[in-house]
Amino acid sequence: MDPLGATTWVIAEGYIPGSSNGPEPQMLSHETVCLLNTGDEDAHVEITVFLTDAEPLGPWQLTVPARRTVHQRFNDLRDPEVPRDTSYASVIRSDRPVVAQHTRLDSRQAENALLTTIAYPA
Amino acid sequence: MDPLGATTWVIAEGYIPGSSNGPEPQMLSHETVCLLNTGDEDAHVEITVFLTDAEPLGPWQLTVPARRTVHQRFNDLRDPEVPRDTSYASVIRSDRPVVAQHTRLDSRQAENALLTTIAYPA
Amino acid sequence: MDPLGATTWVIAEGYIPGSSNGPEPQMLSHETVCLLNTGDEDAHVEITVFLTDAEPLGPWQLTVPARRTVHQRFNDLRDPEVPRDTSYASVIRSDRPVVAQHTRLDSRQAENALLTTIAYPA
Amino acid sequence: MDPLGATTWVIAEGYIPGSSNGPEPQMLSHETVCLLNTGDEDAHVEITVFLTDAEPLGPWQLTVPARRTVHQRFNDLRDPEVPRDTSYASVIRSDRPVVAQHTRLDSRQAENALLTTIAYPA
Repeated sequence: MDPLGATTWVIAEGYIPGSSNGPEPQMLSHETVCLLNTGDEDAHVEITVFLTDAEPLGPWQLTVPARRTVHQRFNDLRDPEVPRDTSYASVIRSDRPVVAQHTRLDSRQAENALLTTIAYPA
Repeated sequence: MDPLGATTWVIAEGYIPGSSNGPEPQMLSHETVCLLNTGDEDAHVEITVFLTDAEPLGPWQLTVPARRTVHQRFNDLRDPEVPRDTSYASVIRSDRPVVAQHTRLDSRQAENALLTTIAYPA
Repeated sequence: MDPLGATTWVIAEGYIPGSSNGPEPQMLSHETVCLLNTGDEDAHVEITVFLTDAEPLGPWQLTVPARRTVHQRFNDLRDPEVPRDTSYASVIRSDRPVVAQHTRLDSRQAENALLTTIAYPA
Repeated sequence: MDPLGATTWVIAEGYIPGSSNGPEPQMLSHETVCLLNTGDEDAHVEITVFLTDAEPLGPWQLTVPARRTVHQRFNDLRDPEVPRDTSYASVIRSDRPVVAQHTRLDSRQAENALLTTIAYPA
């Protein structure tokens, strides 16, 4: 299939709650960027995180293999970690077209809340 | 009415929870692609599902009749089934313009969570 | 302000639950199209509803006055009513640019679920 | 990084519930516009709020500093306040490109509901 999408995506909303209810890892509060590479060559992706009162973090690097999807939890980024209970935003840049969508599971209270939106192709 | 929309749509997020609470089928955890064909000729649609660690599944084929909407649950796709409790993504291709929107009802816990977003027109 | 937006919008997802929990009208299960007219002349809007197995309903007509927003509940459309517990989709057409967004409050269970997305500008 | 995004954004949906459950400020019902400025110069932003039956309110002014995100709660706007339990819509205009996303936490009932969508770049 042709490589569909764009090479730059923006998610202006980000927030990883510091607490959770329910069995882990499924019900752990988490914030995810879902990436899809429909093409026949691997996509090399960089994620940069923007904060309210400090310089941007990252970029973190990951590969979205050809004809695969990667659902990357911001919770799992390391060196450094994305701070908890903190507002952030993110930019995803790729050397090949991908599609990005943003999802959060919030399990701070007994029942979950979910949100999602397509990211903004810049 | 003119046929509105696009012929290729991408949904980077997909996940069918393996468990549910509440009366079925309304409260069964489900993931849906809502398709609308505003035109005066039937649209022939193919759905391909992308996974994290295996080759894509499908395509499944369905028809969205002229001046009709089809709300297709990924749960109901057969031969093969879409795996449960597994991250996936999907591409919808049509021979005529349609509009695609993505919705999930998550009833793993006692109360529902809902999410939706317009798909990405590629 | 200039009239912002587009003259045709599509919402592929629609569903009015037939039951609710909580005080009305705020907590009545409802499905809404939020329309904004930023311009200095009234916008005349037509809503058409598409179904799964019957011809389209409507159009219903409403006015979004200059510099005003109208949050129209599909529940409140009359002659005919939009059927409950039924999948539908909708097209919004206006003689002047407007912006359309889709929101649902689902109160079938004790706790609410909410969803929203920008409509598709066709 | 280049300044990504657009200089005008529209959010057709807005509603600040008048009541809440849970610890404040995290669980206070709130409605937020998340703004990201990826560029190297500050962005000066104006927010205008449109109502159903009165002239628009504002504009309120804020700065999104270079390489920063601002998650502005509509609840926190002053002189005047945005009315509670009232439908509204908003337009965000900036002198430099930014990206805008809309999020609401609704805690009127015991458990939260969340919604988000990318705003409409006009």
